[in-house]
Amino acid sequence: MTGAQYWTEKNQIAKRRTLDNNTDQTVLDIINQIKQSGDAAIRQLTKELDDVLLPKFQVTKEEFKDAYKQVSPAFLRALTKAKNNIQQFHAKQMQQSWFTNSHSGILLGQKITPLEKVGIYVPGGKAAYPSTVLMNVIPAKIAGVESIHIATPPQANGKVNPHILVAAKEAGVDSIYKIGGAQAIAAFAYGTETVPKVQKITGPGNAFVASAKKCVYGDVAIDMIAGPSEICIVADESAPAPYIAADLLSQAEHDEAAKPICITADRTLAAAIQLEVEKQTELLSRKHIIKQALKQNGRIILVKHLNEAFTIVNDLAPEHVQLMIKEPMENLRYVNNAGAIFIGNYSPEALGDYLAGPNHTLPTNGTAAFSSPLGVYDFVKKSSIIHYDKTALLETADEIIELAMTEKLTAHAESINLRKDGRNAKSYN
Amino acid sequence: MTGAQYWTEKNQIAKRRTLDNNTDQTVLDIINQIKQSGDAAIRQLTKELDDVLLPKFQVTKEEFKDAYKQVSPAFLRALTKAKNNIQQFHAKQMQQSWFTNSHSGILLGQKITPLEKVGIYVPGGKAAYPSTVLMNVIPAKIAGVESIHIATPPQANGKVNPHILVAAKEAGVDSIYKIGGAQAIAAFAYGTETVPKVQKITGPGNAFVASAKKCVYGDVAIDMIAGPSEICIVADESAPAPYIAADLLSQAEHDEAAKPICITADRTLAAAIQLEVEKQTELLSRKHIIKQALKQNGRIILVKHLNEAFTIVNDLAPEHVQLMIKEPMENLRYVNNAGAIFIGNYSPEALGDYLAGPNHTLPTNGTAAFSSPLGVYDFVKKSSIIHYDKTALLETADEIIELAMTEKLTAHAESINLRKDGRNAKSYN
Repeated sequence: MTGAQYWTEKNQIAKRRTLDNNTDQTVLDIINQIKQSGDAAIRQLTKELDDVLLPKFQVTKEEFKDAYKQVSPAFLRALTKAKNNIQQFHAKQMQQSWFTNSHSGILLGQKITPLEKVGIYVPGGKAAYPSTVLMNVIPAKIAGVESIHIATPPQANGKVNPHILVAAKEAGVDSIYKIGGAQAIAAFAYGTETVPKVQKITGPGNAFVASAKKCVYGDVAIDMIAGPSEICIVADESAPAPYIAADLLSQAEHDEAAKPICITADRTLAAAIQLEVEKQTELLSRKHIIKQALKQNGRIILVKHLNEAFTIVNDLAPEHVQLMIKEPMENLRYVNNAGAIFIGNYSPEALGDYLAGPNHTLPTNGTAAFSSPLGVYDFVKKSSIIHYDKTALLETADEIIELAMTEKLTAHAESINLRKDGRNAKSYN
Repeated sequence: MTGAQYWTEKNQIAKRRTLDNNTDQTVLDIINQIKQSGDAAIRQLTKELDDVLLPKFQVTKEEFKDAYKQVSPAFLRALTKAKNNIQQFHAKQMQQSWFTNSHSGILLGQKITPLEKVGIYVPGGKAAYPSTVLMNVIPAKIAGVESIHIATPPQANGKVNPHILVAAKEAGVDSIYKIGGAQAIAAFAYGTETVPKVQKITGPGNAFVASAKKCVYGDVAIDMIAGPSEICIVADESAPAPYIAADLLSQAEHDEAAKPICITADRTLAAAIQLEVEKQTELLSRKHIIKQALKQNGRIILVKHLNEAFTIVNDLAPEHVQLMIKEPMENLRYVNNAGAIFIGNYSPEALGDYLAGPNHTLPTNGTAAFSSPLGVYDFVKKSSIIHYDKTALLETADEIIELAMTEKLTAHAESINLRKDGRNAKSYN
């Protein structure tokens, strides 16, 4: 299809998964149960939804110890490598408090303070995602968060996957609770007898987790509402079709709603990618998910000139953009809306998902137009600092009073008048 | 009351105004009407709710011109002074894109890009708040936002207050729409025939505006959900009681739900403040609102030692903290949770509200524990940059594959295998 044709079906590709009313109502019910009955409600819901009866939710020291026996040395080496890279990258995001004193008697600034307590949701069930643990815990740790807690659904045997436990221990988590879904989000937002109330909840999850995060937003901070994720590969004849196909498939295997998209001006390449996608899919363990994703949202978009590609990229605002073109760095300036930009033929999405260092928690579902990757900045808050001495205040007193009176806020005006004249100026009745 | 006594009623003071179900349902209905019928729905709702029938919503060039004739030179001078101070402070918040190249063949970084379109809500009705215009528009402008739009409810005569129009023009706004309440938020979130769909909505508003912002959050970014605001003045005998009283009253006049709180260890000062509050209140135009606020949430908290005060401050996480004590800078280190910290006897809240330079859009309702003042950083987004060359990728290929296989994501593993061996490694079926 050409660029022009693409636009007619843009809405179809970019269609957002919005939360449905049934999910929201179920989630509201769960949140109210947790608020009212705390741990008892968690226990009941875990029995109902995860089919496990847990006397205690918190992972014990023994369970951590056991976990280390169950993971391979190769896993631990790879985890350590990833941890080091993630730490190095995120350390550069650390912001400093600052102040200016450019006028005598005036000091202005911004104080950076870490959040005190953070809760991280780590999806569980059939698969385990130790990379999610590292990507959420490490920036919080670097920010200086005092205590970091994880909630993750228990497996059928009442345990947590050992790779998650080891990743959490290595990253420096304070405690892990075997709680899944909306009940975990509610527990972190409002606290229970055993689960601490936190100031911010981060981490991915299914539709129930997403809905719960939106519900508690405002009472507690959240990172984002995660939706289906996208890859958009901009390619020319310098890119090997097998690589492009493999990267599209690595996106597709995440989720039936994932959007694996390639944009090229090269018709021959497009055809080769199509063939490679079909061939490689058959070799993969998650081919049923992949086929669904390809069918629903998989696209190879043929444009006339490659510069059209950037218009499409910016319009989709995808989670991942790969520039597999002759001069990728020259074209970086045209990408405005993307969670992460992968440059060249040897920087596949999988590199960023696990190991390069930048965060893999990226804005999904088109929100890269206005959101950023998770970072150290998500685990601190800022406070303004304002100091004027008497001379500085009196010099500008009349202007403050003028603005306050324009807004009919006489008490504001009076707080300045008093300091100027040492008495109340007048009655405003 | 003593510090100990305070704790027993802490929950009462800190009680949050949560949105009620009726507000939410009304707001959902309004949002759906705007989504379905666009401008026609806005026109209908504006007739119903603001009692004005508007053929066109957008403020015309002539209306801007007229506005300049209606404001005083003193207002324009004060506005210009405020604008310059706000610009100077916010310019220091500008962040730069950065990258590192600390390993050969590896380039990592973060690209900063301004948002494209922003919508700002400015409350209207009886009062007009030109300061809100400056505080929202200037950081967006400095960030490099391409187009900035304001929505504000029309007055009974179908016009917008001239001070708002002049402030908007001076700050560099692109267009103003005479639309109020939830309908304005919905119009910005989803776009209509005349109102542009934006990427982020900022600005304060009543309960309907707050509820609408929460509803559209995720489809569009928002700054925060504004609630009733707080001041917490920590004072000792070095602070004049009349100043403290005046500052408490300037907070109280905002809103019946405002929380004007003073904490001191000096019983004599406490009594003097109480007297001053009563005396000054009678002189003020908004004394009915002030008396309500004082009655509901006004407190002078007597502690045994001033260091207890900081525990209370951090627990309340107030919008404004004033340190009116002998060595305020020495005690800055103990304030963790505050939107803005005002230092000394000549830095009243009113100074920060209008003119000092830092933003007056601050986290309210206890959210300073996890949120920050509005700033330039709110109007940009970040994209990660990831480049590995072939050598760098192959060096770490095994570790990526190990982690991908742990997470059972074979397509991820395969995207690396292919680059390593030039062929598909194996079948994962």
